[in-house]
Amino acid sequence: MMHVGALLEFSPSKATSKDFSRELREELSALARSVTVASPWNQRLLHPEMLTNPLQAWVPDEHFDLEYHVRRSALASPGDERELGSLVSRLHGTPLDFQRPPWEAHFIEGLEKKRIAIYFKVHHALIDGYTGMRLLSKSLSTDPNDLDTPLFFARAEGERRREREEQVPTLDALLHAVRDQIGVAKDIGRALVKVVRGMRDHGPKLALPLQAPRSVLNQKISRSRRFATQQISLDRIKRVAASAGGTLNDVVLAICGAALRRFLLELGELPERPLVAMVPVNVRPKDDPGGGNAVGAILASLATDVEDPRKCLDAVIASTKRAKEQLQGMSKGAIMQYSGLVLAPLMLSFIPGAVGRLRPAFNVVVSNVPGPETPLYFRGWRLDEMYPLSIPFHGYGLNITVQSYAGSLNFGFTGCRDTLPHLQRLAVYSGEVIEKMERA
Amino acid sequence: MMHVGALLEFSPSKATSKDFSRELREELSALARSVTVASPWNQRLLHPEMLTNPLQAWVPDEHFDLEYHVRRSALASPGDERELGSLVSRLHGTPLDFQRPPWEAHFIEGLEKKRIAIYFKVHHALIDGYTGMRLLSKSLSTDPNDLDTPLFFARAEGERRREREEQVPTLDALLHAVRDQIGVAKDIGRALVKVVRGMRDHGPKLALPLQAPRSVLNQKISRSRRFATQQISLDRIKRVAASAGGTLNDVVLAICGAALRRFLLELGELPERPLVAMVPVNVRPKDDPGGGNAVGAILASLATDVEDPRKCLDAVIASTKRAKEQLQGMSKGAIMQYSGLVLAPLMLSFIPGAVGRLRPAFNVVVSNVPGPETPLYFRGWRLDEMYPLSIPFHGYGLNITVQSYAGSLNFGFTGCRDTLPHLQRLAVYSGEVIEKMERA
Repeated sequence: MMHVGALLEFSPSKATSKDFSRELREELSALARSVTVASPWNQRLLHPEMLTNPLQAWVPDEHFDLEYHVRRSALASPGDERELGSLVSRLHGTPLDFQRPPWEAHFIEGLEKKRIAIYFKVHHALIDGYTGMRLLSKSLSTDPNDLDTPLFFARAEGERRREREEQVPTLDALLHAVRDQIGVAKDIGRALVKVVRGMRDHGPKLALPLQAPRSVLNQKISRSRRFATQQISLDRIKRVAASAGGTLNDVVLAICGAALRRFLLELGELPERPLVAMVPVNVRPKDDPGGGNAVGAILASLATDVEDPRKCLDAVIASTKRAKEQLQGMSKGAIMQYSGLVLAPLMLSFIPGAVGRLRPAFNVVVSNVPGPETPLYFRGWRLDEMYPLSIPFHGYGLNITVQSYAGSLNFGFTGCRDTLPHLQRLAVYSGEVIEKMERA
Repeated sequence: MMHVGALLEFSPSKATSKDFSRELREELSALARSVTVASPWNQRLLHPEMLTNPLQAWVPDEHFDLEYHVRRSALASPGDERELGSLVSRLHGTPLDFQRPPWEAHFIEGLEKKRIAIYFKVHHALIDGYTGMRLLSKSLSTDPNDLDTPLFFARAEGERRREREEQVPTLDALLHAVRDQIGVAKDIGRALVKVVRGMRDHGPKLALPLQAPRSVLNQKISRSRRFATQQISLDRIKRVAASAGGTLNDVVLAICGAALRRFLLELGELPERPLVAMVPVNVRPKDDPGGGNAVGAILASLATDVEDPRKCLDAVIASTKRAKEQLQGMSKGAIMQYSGLVLAPLMLSFIPGAVGRLRPAFNVVVSNVPGPETPLYFRGWRLDEMYPLSIPFHGYGLNITVQSYAGSLNFGFTGCRDTLPHLQRLAVYSGEVIEKMERA
């Protein structure tokens, strides 16, 4: 169940074909007979039966079955956000098939106001969520009158093999960096010893600054998922950030914190001590001569013990400031050691039986990644919203990934269906919190 | 992937509510808050993580999540048979979750002519396909004006624990009978020795009468499924049967044979020797003092080497006659030994690596079960068609299950998506074959 996803919602325009649905069906039928699918979309595992085979490799799928990977779906009436949420939750709750290139795209019709949506899903071993979002964005057009946009999988890219130009602070980048540092997850025992030794070398500065309380977010999870979304204008968040003297990311964390507070209060499950978020960030290490950045993990208080939204925001700002100062005083090696320490419990979650016995190192992952800045179009359909879906882990049943797009921040809440009922409310509360912060 | 299913298609009537979709949504929301789900629908495994646990048992699910089990879906436009087939194929191609009661029901809207459909899926360890169909049928009404039919899972039944009144010749009944005789699948090595010894005891009569050719139907299968359907009037089949001096089941087999011949010819994959079907039948053993029936397996030639439809039917009739005569001359014990011999390769298919190395004992399972005789209704919606979905096995990638309903025979073709492309054609050809037989 290590797949990430994206939900894209589009509105029609004057340029949009009235017969889009029929044309898409015909196009897909025609493509199914003769399509050249570009890398990475045509890549499957050489040894799907044995994922840890040392000779594992990605190879082109000789029997690529387009109709399997690209599907048309529709919402049951009335086609509102609830129906969309429940379809996308279901689709995100089924595993991908490793006998094939591990991705699926679903064109969804039957949305209210004649809108359409695309749900896209890919195993993070093929491409990470951020790269997936970038490939999808790049396959769209910036021109509302471009009616010939090809479908993303038919574009030559070769992106997967290319090095990323810039370090983007994603959970995936963190996991990769930490894995390079401490080795693969199956050596986690030895890795932890290494992390603890590294801590000693770097002195007391590497101790975890916060202690996360036990919470309902930190249980063994099921296979099923819930997904909920919220879109907030970037301007509103920037204004709140400026008036409080914090960053945009601080406001995102405070929104998540205040919404989680209300959500958990209603469930009767709010811990006394504040929830702690693990946040991937970019930092400039003190020993990097090239002035380059490194991705590191910080732990930030979500100030869920504070009721007043403004005070909550202040507490978050103070917490992230301390955490970033700590990281910036470190060498690149120390940053990785520290991030390894923070992430070790997440990697431990792959070991059966480990969850529940360990105290959580943090309660929730909140990650904020940059997205396209200008409005995008698909054959005249305007992309209104673009939400990332990520991976809950055993012990870490909620992931909040936020992505910017054309003047808005798009919050994607991916949670375990069984340990986090009513996840939709968390999304709704996030939208209400920003109003309270503006007033405060 | 050991689940069976059913596809039910309904037409609206004057009595049908115009707001059916909204009312269903509201009803399901209300039920989700407070529903008493009857046995077996509330039963889950006690040890879902370890299916072979010797203390395995069915227990009530304390956290029954109705919205997980009962779902509303819609077809992408135009909502034709092809879209319905592709949705049902997808739904049948995902495994059930053993952490919950292993069943799902999908109410499907967006069909052409304002029709609706229900797709239902259950693990055969909870209830077998025939019992599932019977429970679904019993939950419907014989009265077109009964608008209060409760949803099937809210009806008190306790059916699963009840003994079946009559022996119905299903694949499941066969598998159970054979398992009682030769033990569980993991002891298959010893079981086969037992079967071969039994053969010796019963003499040469127990030798398999037919040798099945290798074919594309008999490969290792994938996780994905294709499903196709055909409905033929019972009267037409009866007339053909009477004029040829065969049974209804003979005509069903001949239809499957002629359609498979054309399907495989087009794929360039028709074996020289005729395909062999394994058919569960009811027989009266010679030693049963009570005159009771036993379920046995016969092997019948599908006469796919014969082009002329009438000659094909004659060849099938001769083949099933011989096979049934052989069985009727046996004691009940011998029938079970013989059926064990026939089914052993199907049970061997659970053993990794066994498929492909063994010659198939037969090519396809064709099973024909009785269904409701009078038209049924769900809140004024008339049930037009009712198709069974069954289980393909490794080495046996196609299952044809036929069920009667209110004057029609409903053919459900469940196949492996990857080894059997264009399965839809097989269904179409079945409908055309009967015309040729009528003319002949």
